[in-house]
Amino acid sequence: MSRCIEEGSVILLHYDVKRQWLLRVENKKQFHTHKGYVNLSELIGQPFGSEIKSSLGDSFWALRPTTNDLIMHSTRRTQIMYPKDIGLIILKLGLVSGNRVIEIGTGSGAMTVAAALAVKPLGHVDTYEMRPEFVEIAEKNLKRASVQEYVAIHLNDASKGVEGAEFDAAILDVGDPWPIIPHIYTALAGGAPLVSFSPTINQVEKTSSILLQTGFVNVHTIESFIREIRAETGKTRPATMMIGHTGYMTFAQKIQRPNAATE
Amino acid sequence: MSRCIEEGSVILLHYDVKRQWLLRVENKKQFHTHKGYVNLSELIGQPFGSEIKSSLGDSFWALRPTTNDLIMHSTRRTQIMYPKDIGLIILKLGLVSGNRVIEIGTGSGAMTVAAALAVKPLGHVDTYEMRPEFVEIAEKNLKRASVQEYVAIHLNDASKGVEGAEFDAAILDVGDPWPIIPHIYTALAGGAPLVSFSPTINQVEKTSSILLQTGFVNVHTIESFIREIRAETGKTRPATMMIGHTGYMTFAQKIQRPNAATE
Amino acid sequence: MSRCIEEGSVILLHYDVKRQWLLRVENKKQFHTHKGYVNLSELIGQPFGSEIKSSLGDSFWALRPTTNDLIMHSTRRTQIMYPKDIGLIILKLGLVSGNRVIEIGTGSGAMTVAAALAVKPLGHVDTYEMRPEFVEIAEKNLKRASVQEYVAIHLNDASKGVEGAEFDAAILDVGDPWPIIPHIYTALAGGAPLVSFSPTINQVEKTSSILLQTGFVNVHTIESFIREIRAETGKTRPATMMIGHTGYMTFAQKIQRPNAATE
Amino acid sequence: MSRCIEEGSVILLHYDVKRQWLLRVENKKQFHTHKGYVNLSELIGQPFGSEIKSSLGDSFWALRPTTNDLIMHSTRRTQIMYPKDIGLIILKLGLVSGNRVIEIGTGSGAMTVAAALAVKPLGHVDTYEMRPEFVEIAEKNLKRASVQEYVAIHLNDASKGVEGAEFDAAILDVGDPWPIIPHIYTALAGGAPLVSFSPTINQVEKTSSILLQTGFVNVHTIESFIREIRAETGKTRPATMMIGHTGYMTFAQKIQRPNAATE
Repeated sequence: MSRCIEEGSVILLHYDVKRQWLLRVENKKQFHTHKGYVNLSELIGQPFGSEIKSSLGDSFWALRPTTNDLIMHSTRRTQIMYPKDIGLIILKLGLVSGNRVIEIGTGSGAMTVAAALAVKPLGHVDTYEMRPEFVEIAEKNLKRASVQEYVAIHLNDASKGVEGAEFDAAILDVGDPWPIIPHIYTALAGGAPLVSFSPTINQVEKTSSILLQTGFVNVHTIESFIREIRAETGKTRPATMMIGHTGYMTFAQKIQRPNAATE
Repeated sequence: MSRCIEEGSVILLHYDVKRQWLLRVENKKQFHTHKGYVNLSELIGQPFGSEIKSSLGDSFWALRPTTNDLIMHSTRRTQIMYPKDIGLIILKLGLVSGNRVIEIGTGSGAMTVAAALAVKPLGHVDTYEMRPEFVEIAEKNLKRASVQEYVAIHLNDASKGVEGAEFDAAILDVGDPWPIIPHIYTALAGGAPLVSFSPTINQVEKTSSILLQTGFVNVHTIESFIREIRAETGKTRPATMMIGHTGYMTFAQKIQRPNAATE
Repeated sequence: MSRCIEEGSVILLHYDVKRQWLLRVENKKQFHTHKGYVNLSELIGQPFGSEIKSSLGDSFWALRPTTNDLIMHSTRRTQIMYPKDIGLIILKLGLVSGNRVIEIGTGSGAMTVAAALAVKPLGHVDTYEMRPEFVEIAEKNLKRASVQEYVAIHLNDASKGVEGAEFDAAILDVGDPWPIIPHIYTALAGGAPLVSFSPTINQVEKTSSILLQTGFVNVHTIESFIREIRAETGKTRPATMMIGHTGYMTFAQKIQRPNAATE
Repeated sequence: MSRCIEEGSVILLHYDVKRQWLLRVENKKQFHTHKGYVNLSELIGQPFGSEIKSSLGDSFWALRPTTNDLIMHSTRRTQIMYPKDIGLIILKLGLVSGNRVIEIGTGSGAMTVAAALAVKPLGHVDTYEMRPEFVEIAEKNLKRASVQEYVAIHLNDASKGVEGAEFDAAILDVGDPWPIIPHIYTALAGGAPLVSFSPTINQVEKTSSILLQTGFVNVHTIESFIREIRAETGKTRPATMMIGHTGYMTFAQKIQRPNAATE
């Protein structure tokens, strides 16, 4: 990993915990903030972690963006999955370098970016999205995370079938995953895991039932929460507001069915 | 990834959501359950996801273990971090293949396994543990996850200094991280992230304060929760009990200090 | 309120936060604990808050039981509502002295005790229960809380109709509240509030829909949680386990329907 | 309880779950909404629960306000305790009609209103507040809830001492309750309960420690949460945002100290 910021590097420009921006460093590029503007080109050749002063003399810092930053600062047109969900999905699907992943419902590509980062450089993500305007947003987010070479976006309706076989894991993030589940069953390797992300409990009920019928076991659903703590010596307290819901995650693993050979 | 179970493969033997075991398949090995015994050697040459009948005729399934399973079924002598925490840590540290990670407090190695899986095959984890009995447990868990080649366990007191430099990320899971933080500052690459895991809020307060003094910004703390949902058509409800606390995660990123060159 | 413990007084015998018992003080009564036995009659004539030594010389304390203690130490055969739910119900129904309350589903009487304590001495609770074995348990719990005079238990099927009119509030805690809702509508005063307590989300959906159809507005559902904090100087942390679910509370308020006069 | 709305009645004017207002019905009073104005005097003589049409023909409903509504629609200048906290406090203090309560830190009077409603008509609340501007707000809120006759507001510094003795319960909602705790100990009846409400965990630690030293047992702390569920047939899901923190509640009960007679 490069230690110095180069032209084209993506940085997290940090002012404080609430004010930080994901930016590409370009020559002659100025970034305007509430504390004056910053000449990003001053950072070229400097190590990550360097201070940069704004035109008003305030300190900003050029940090290395993490997967979390790439997700939270992604361009989006829909509600995205949050790191609290995505992190758990990566562990529960066991995504590691070299895995081949199939995703249905690219959306803005937040989960796609995280999956690609988890499976690179030896793995690959095939992701399906029916809405061209989302493909465009996702491509932008994949490019900013420098993972476009590990992802193929299919502008297709996955309910009519998917390409490929022996995938190591599947991720579904669509409102009606039910017609797609049989195709996913066929595309997955034996014993491989799946997650379906659903905002409503009715979707969870239906998805769980269809997974069990289709040839999955270990079907279980969880929801995740995070709470911020404001740690300050002598006055530490949790943040007043928190996110109470993003979606439910239903997990399952494919089993070999008696008649699977004939499918 | 091998599609078939071989002698030596680690499987998740699944009976139902509450009863599953992480096992190594060995010739002539029987595994005894409440539903009779299973001859694991019958699985050799079968695809993952295969059914296996117990001596009493009950169905079990040989699933592929995920990172989550390796953590939750690890041998342990202490409270471990949970997948809900570890997943978020991997995203917030941005761990990807090729990263070099330094960890203080190997414990039973649950976090170490997950970090090694995230950075392999091109990365590496250096982990420090002072208690020989934990080193032994961690080695066992690393071996079961097949990641021992990506990890070096140092049976050393990290408060006296650590080896190496330009690490991409640091993980602290010790009761008194404070004397170690300056060494970690020196060992990290510029802008690189750190997490410190602490069961008590007093540790969080002190850690946050020392991080800010040492040369870190973006210091913030979160706690995570998961809740299980029992989805069953017409009677869906959350599980009665949940885990209310494991620990707080304090995150930060290294900045270049004015005098850093002289250190 | 009597300041001294008398024969017949109900006390909370306290050893520590985890070990306390709701007991009636009777002459010559010994209470056996893990720390020896206590002669409860020694407390007669002493003020509440007095220490009492066990036969092994350990200190116990005779505290005044609160509504919370009466609920948490009630004899029970079913899952009861918890104080976290009951406290909110009392506020959201606005129960105060003088109110007349109708409850369907007495169960072990935990909610009944709390409602009776909230409306006494001028109010009254009519509660319906179909299972004689629960009526017996509830009577015992009401007596221990000294509220039996404010409660009438009806051993009847409320789905066939209820007695009385112009109730100030209604509480439903049954698996199938739907056939009862029209009777409750008729029994409530105009604008009066109702709560229905349901373990499953499917019950919530159906109840909400039927409430809206029957002549209620302000239909909304909440769930409540509590988390214990173990406060100890320098090592404060939340408790490891917490209750993740008891039930959902659906609230609503009766409106006058155009044709209400003809009902 | 009066069944009909009179001049001077306080109503909850309901449009939908998110839009409702606590109003006093007065002759010739118009209330302006986003859906036109409502002539509140049309409601005089109508039963609670009646519909009223706005000038634009939209339906509003005149509901009976509950304790919850009086709290949530109170005039306030500070963060108030929420019903989720207050309901639990009332149960855990065992507040019932006839109790005498001492409160330190009236603030906007939200807790005071709820305590007065719980102890009326036979009980009483003595509440202390040092800031005249809050006394004024609290008086307004008490009047709107029609409980002013059950409350005495003391514009005094409670750390210099409090009047009265043998109180049944104490409520502390101040930033530095520590100098007040000895006075509260003296003012409480034997075995009587206390709650201290604190936004920060540091306050909790210090309060717990001082309570134990002063002569209290059963010292324990909890925090409470509620989550809203949006129940809609086929698309039921929790609300996106929730309140993550208001404050911690530390409970305790007074014991008789060996030397209490000399105090």
